Amino acid sequence: VNILLLAPQFECSDTWRIAMAAAAPDVAIVADGDVDSAVIEGALVDEPPPGRLQYCTNLRFILSLSAGVDSLLADPTLPAVPIVRLVNTEMSALMREYIVYQVLRLHRRFDETEALQRDRRWVWLSSAASAASRVVSVLGVGHLGRPAAEALQSLGFQVRVWSRTPKQIPGIRCFTGIDGLHTLLAGTDILVSVLPLTPDTMDILSEDLFRRLPVGASIINVGRGACLREDDLLNALDSGHLAHATLDVFAVEPLPDEHPLWRHPRVTITPHTAAYPEPESFVKTIATALTRIREGDIPTVVDRLHGY
Amino acid sequence: VNILLLAPQFECSDTWRIAMAAAAPDVAIVADGDVDSAVIEGALVDEPPPGRLQYCTNLRFILSLSAGVDSLLADPTLPAVPIVRLVNTEMSALMREYIVYQVLRLHRRFDETEALQRDRRWVWLSSAASAASRVVSVLGVGHLGRPAAEALQSLGFQVRVWSRTPKQIPGIRCFTGIDGLHTLLAGTDILVSVLPLTPDTMDILSEDLFRRLPVGASIINVGRGACLREDDLLNALDSGHLAHATLDVFAVEPLPDEHPLWRHPRVTITPHTAAYPEPESFVKTIATALTRIREGDIPTVVDRLHGY
Repeated sequence: VNILLLAPQFECSDTWRIAMAAAAPDVAIVADGDVDSAVIEGALVDEPPPGRLQYCTNLRFILSLSAGVDSLLADPTLPAVPIVRLVNTEMSALMREYIVYQVLRLHRRFDETEALQRDRRWVWLSSAASAASRVVSVLGVGHLGRPAAEALQSLGFQVRVWSRTPKQIPGIRCFTGIDGLHTLLAGTDILVSVLPLTPDTMDILSEDLFRRLPVGASIINVGRGACLREDDLLNALDSGHLAHATLDVFAVEPLPDEHPLWRHPRVTITPHTAAYPEPESFVKTIATALTRIREGDIPTVVDRLHGY
Repeated sequence: VNILLLAPQFECSDTWRIAMAAAAPDVAIVADGDVDSAVIEGALVDEPPPGRLQYCTNLRFILSLSAGVDSLLADPTLPAVPIVRLVNTEMSALMREYIVYQVLRLHRRFDETEALQRDRRWVWLSSAASAASRVVSVLGVGHLGRPAAEALQSLGFQVRVWSRTPKQIPGIRCFTGIDGLHTLLAGTDILVSVLPLTPDTMDILSEDLFRRLPVGASIINVGRGACLREDDLLNALDSGHLAHATLDVFAVEPLPDEHPLWRHPRVTITPHTAAYPEPESFVKTIATALTRIREGDIPTVVDRLHGY
């Protein structure tokens, strides 16, 4: 089986290539241009160039290394083959680490402590409020959001989640639907979005949503940049309604040099690195997916109707 | 019962005073100078001025709000009454938050990401290593260290602990004794000290210990400043043997303005705030301790032989 690789980070990794060859010896991972497109049966991609896959006329499946498949689905020339999302446990673990870290940073005001060190100032900001007094809400509780929500709960936070389909998670208040979202927002101190980008979630983090949060709330966006209206966010920060925003994803990436988010004193920027595991961590996930595809049992396929 | 209060943060809190009066109406919390020292039966203290308590000739017990009682025990004039350490669950939870945050900061190189934002640089440092590939070791696993060790384990780290008395904790490698310490150090990536200051732990974080850690290891000290030799630490950082130090406690506090630790590029400073809960969180702990003392069942008394 020839599988076309369109994922820059993986193309550079020799250790990944060697491990992959050992785990799936009958599979040839080929670089773009190495073989004729017509002999390619599968594609292993991380947000590939739009239009590229239409030339793979015998394509049977696409394996997406990115949890977000919005850019794939936005390509009108994409062959109508199953898209498998390769979310592995390592990616879930990294997302959990990122969210726990950033929530603790806001909860304990560590950003302010770190700024004080730069001025050599020994200042007690205040006694620390208890995690039990904070409501942290997670939007999107699939493979990436749920482990984070559970870790926050085990650290003592009051955790709420919101998802398209109803969920039941012990000790966590689960909401669904637009009314559920509004109820959740009204009592939220820290809002974490792990939402995929779909027609329903485009621009969901906008003025209307921010206004429903209590004054002084903070937001963390690790879903997709286009879920958030950056101008509305800047207004909500500057009016004092929101206290802080921590952003890993942006409407345009890399975030342009002149963008006001870079220098906003109450914005934390990370360069889309919340949950990017080492290529080697995907070897087993890919090999398992290929075995299942060969057996006709295609795993975790993207639902094109709902967009994720 | 008259109880003398010697704890600045508590003296300023009216909400604490009101809650305390409601929880223990037969107890009078008195400020220094309000009543004659001879009518004082108990003291509620957070590192009080040495020499002060000797004048309380009818003192029957001391309640320590600080988990560290080294400065109390160092006072030769201290009345020979039981010292009760008021470690509450809130303090344990805050210490767990601090340690989880600082370990994740080192594990994911968030300090470097945050510095890059200040220069508006969108740079991928590297794919993230898995928590399962990191050994985090916790020295001291009492009320404060153990919940942190367990939280780190649940985030996927390989966790080791070292304590004076042998421990058994599911999924965690437990060490004791000097040989145990040396074995633990040799494989440690991030070393966290929650040790109390005793004759055995004074200067324990020194050149000899640093040399036993692998090159590139980091340390976090949330125990006591005098457990660590600051000059040895600076040498170990500057030689490149240690990668980073995160310090909440210091030999002299507040850390003097001219101290080289403040500006070291690989040192994170917090002003002894790892686990300082709101005064109100102690109301129930204090009321319970007072009831037990009245019933002659004095709780968690400091062992003066071992110094904690």
